[in-house]
Amino acid sequence: MAPFFICALHYIWPMIQVFVTGGTFDKEYNYITGQLYFEDTHLKEMFDRGRCSLEIDIKTLMMVDSLEMTEQDRGIIVHNTARSQYDKVIITHGTDRMVQTAKELAAANISKTVVLTGAMVPYAFGTSSDGFFNLGSALAFAQCKPHGVYIAMNGRCFDWDKVKKNTATGFFETI
Amino acid sequence: MAPFFICALHYIWPMIQVFVTGGTFDKEYNYITGQLYFEDTHLKEMFDRGRCSLEIDIKTLMMVDSLEMTEQDRGIIVHNTARSQYDKVIITHGTDRMVQTAKELAAANISKTVVLTGAMVPYAFGTSSDGFFNLGSALAFAQCKPHGVYIAMNGRCFDWDKVKKNTATGFFETI
Amino acid sequence: MAPFFICALHYIWPMIQVFVTGGTFDKEYNYITGQLYFEDTHLKEMFDRGRCSLEIDIKTLMMVDSLEMTEQDRGIIVHNTARSQYDKVIITHGTDRMVQTAKELAAANISKTVVLTGAMVPYAFGTSSDGFFNLGSALAFAQCKPHGVYIAMNGRCFDWDKVKKNTATGFFETI
Amino acid sequence: MAPFFICALHYIWPMIQVFVTGGTFDKEYNYITGQLYFEDTHLKEMFDRGRCSLEIDIKTLMMVDSLEMTEQDRGIIVHNTARSQYDKVIITHGTDRMVQTAKELAAANISKTVVLTGAMVPYAFGTSSDGFFNLGSALAFAQCKPHGVYIAMNGRCFDWDKVKKNTATGFFETI
Repeated sequence: MAPFFICALHYIWPMIQVFVTGGTFDKEYNYITGQLYFEDTHLKEMFDRGRCSLEIDIKTLMMVDSLEMTEQDRGIIVHNTARSQYDKVIITHGTDRMVQTAKELAAANISKTVVLTGAMVPYAFGTSSDGFFNLGSALAFAQCKPHGVYIAMNGRCFDWDKVKKNTATGFFETI
Repeated sequence: MAPFFICALHYIWPMIQVFVTGGTFDKEYNYITGQLYFEDTHLKEMFDRGRCSLEIDIKTLMMVDSLEMTEQDRGIIVHNTARSQYDKVIITHGTDRMVQTAKELAAANISKTVVLTGAMVPYAFGTSSDGFFNLGSALAFAQCKPHGVYIAMNGRCFDWDKVKKNTATGFFETI
Repeated sequence: MAPFFICALHYIWPMIQVFVTGGTFDKEYNYITGQLYFEDTHLKEMFDRGRCSLEIDIKTLMMVDSLEMTEQDRGIIVHNTARSQYDKVIITHGTDRMVQTAKELAAANISKTVVLTGAMVPYAFGTSSDGFFNLGSALAFAQCKPHGVYIAMNGRCFDWDKVKKNTATGFFETI
Repeated sequence: MAPFFICALHYIWPMIQVFVTGGTFDKEYNYITGQLYFEDTHLKEMFDRGRCSLEIDIKTLMMVDSLEMTEQDRGIIVHNTARSQYDKVIITHGTDRMVQTAKELAAANISKTVVLTGAMVPYAFGTSSDGFFNLGSALAFAQCKPHGVYIAMNGRCFDWDKVKKNTATGFFETI
């Protein structure tokens, strides 16, 4: 595709940066150990299946459970979000520490629309996963919302500083 | 849930009206005839699976292939959209005549945000359907967009008067 | 269905006893804890989906991971298999201790065809599970094999005393 | 794998010939036209998913709806079945003319165990298809049954001359 065409498209439809960090979203079932683990991300196939015609730039920053995310990991996420050339960034992320990463992103004062999303059931578990729905909503919120940091879960878009995960129910709630 | 609580929620999170009209979205495979047909809508189970915590009011207006939609059918859609008590309306619709219904909705000058969406592959066909992704994006666009009539397909939100379906590729495109 | 008809069918097509004991086959994903657990068995819906027209009598004896199966649990399986009124018995079972239960069934010298089967990936995980395939093969082997105790996994039917699970690969192998 | 090892295995576990002829089993949904069509067969991925450890030789003879099968097509099936080097042959086939092809195979007096199977719902339609179950049972029947021609559907194995498809219910029945 010629640079000029990309440029022209840019004025009409936004290009979206997607950063993969792991989380339940991309977990697989290991049939030997019975544990969940990470193989490769499903994001590319999900956008294809969603027949998405936006230009999406997918980069895998890490594949970790957010409970095991370190300060250094969060630093990598913030750094890459800040230096992305795109105005709209979607970050797939484990739900347990999604709010914490959102806070650090907000603290960095990045002039972009940043939407974190995730899943309660792995995409690989087929017709029970919420991941594909969440990705569709995150993509839409990323296109609509003004600059800021948001969490797209449960069909809603939460401001980073007005949300917590209810660990008993698994739902995100306003605070 | 007490009426007061619903009322309070109303100020924080919008309630969404969903009108089901059929389309590929809700088609099933008849294993006797090998044809596609309509049984019941999947919308309720889709919002559940998406773990959507917004209040959604789902009404099935009809279950038809949009190629077989009559003027009367479109009249029913416009009428119900106008008289819905909610400000945000999602309409699931066959993709072949989605633009035509959008036009008639726009002509009715309804002061609501109306988002039409659909699917290229039936939701019942499992892990190949785009419907769940489209529903997630339609739900998000319905919450973000100002009053008007829109088509949410392919990860995008098109204005009703700037879109056509490319029948050769199945993608919606700006005109 | 009139008793006479059942009786008549009995001469033509065997009635099959299915005992559910749990195992990966029937595990679900708990999206709060990220652990696998048991809810209800999927066996009835699997035979329906397989459009099975044999008369099947499904009884859930227990819902346990075979690693946690006690001697008492195995006693219940052997007892119920012995006293079933049917000549052909399928037992769904965790793969880790399937061979051990097969041994105890063989030691009981029951004059029936007993086929144990299971899955490496839970049926609830959709299009990655081997369970539906294994059930089809177990059902066929149960109809064909002479009295004895067998393990139906990996498309094969193993004699109870000539098989082990390779815990490194997850495949059953002849010994 | 060394030739000697293959040879040794041959004595222990049968090698199975699988001939693909199309049928609902391998149909796909064309989202542009809304029609079913054939792309590539799913048989290889099905045996992988079933974690089948038998040696299977899959050959695609044709990809046709059995209603459109010609005498020449049936000739190709009979010819290839006769000249296969394997003693056990599974043929995936459209259900509408499965009995007719079984008859022609029987008329050819081939000294092999030949099992025809198919599906009422395409494998590609995910968690509603019976195909994976039928394949598991066909594979088991092929290993157990004496030479002859059989139809494996609905969890049963029918002799070629004692079966018809009930076109009203979609079930195979003894005659």
